[in-house]
Amino acid sequence: MAEEKETKGNAQDNVVFVGKKGTMAYVLAVVTQMNQGAKEVVVKARGKAISRAVDVAEIVRHKFITEAEIAEIKTSTEEVTAEDGKPLKVSAIEIKLVKK
Amino acid sequence: MAEEKETKGNAQDNVVFVGKKGTMAYVLAVVTQMNQGAKEVVVKARGKAISRAVDVAEIVRHKFITEAEIAEIKTSTEEVTAEDGKPLKVSAIEIKLVKK
Repeated sequence: MAEEKETKGNAQDNVVFVGKKGTMAYVLAVVTQMNQGAKEVVVKARGKAISRAVDVAEIVRHKFITEAEIAEIKTSTEEVTAEDGKPLKVSAIEIKLVKK
Repeated sequence: MAEEKETKGNAQDNVVFVGKKGTMAYVLAVVTQMNQGAKEVVVKARGKAISRAVDVAEIVRHKFITEAEIAEIKTSTEEVTAEDGKPLKVSAIEIKLVKK
């Protein structure tokens, strides 16, 4: 099973974007990618979902894939368009999980 | 309003613990500490306040102290006691802002 997709181990293809679903949906997405051979998964989020992204990374490495560690965390500010059409600045996070 | 006294870390550490107040209250706390000579301020938060802590760090470095940069971001899992007395795991973040 794990042998099937060797090319998935390639770096930047593996991104999980955390939004409004339950935390475990994203945990499962990360765990699945790693179990399919990904050595690295980047968990991304914006705004209020940032807290959930940190939960996802912490749960993955403490509960499911203990050989995974957080290699890097980056934050940034992105400009999006609000509902009223005005530009709005929102914080973003990228958490890089790497399997040792 | 009761003022929280941060006793964590040694005396030289400048820590701002982000909670439920408005984002700008914490931005002001960081900016004040840096303007009073602190070269380094650590912004800490737990749970849902994590998103706000990222906002604080981003606003400080982009709007107020452009010579400040994020030197390090660490996440962890802490165990707290829930209202019903049960142990509860909560994610935490520490964002180290350093003035160049």
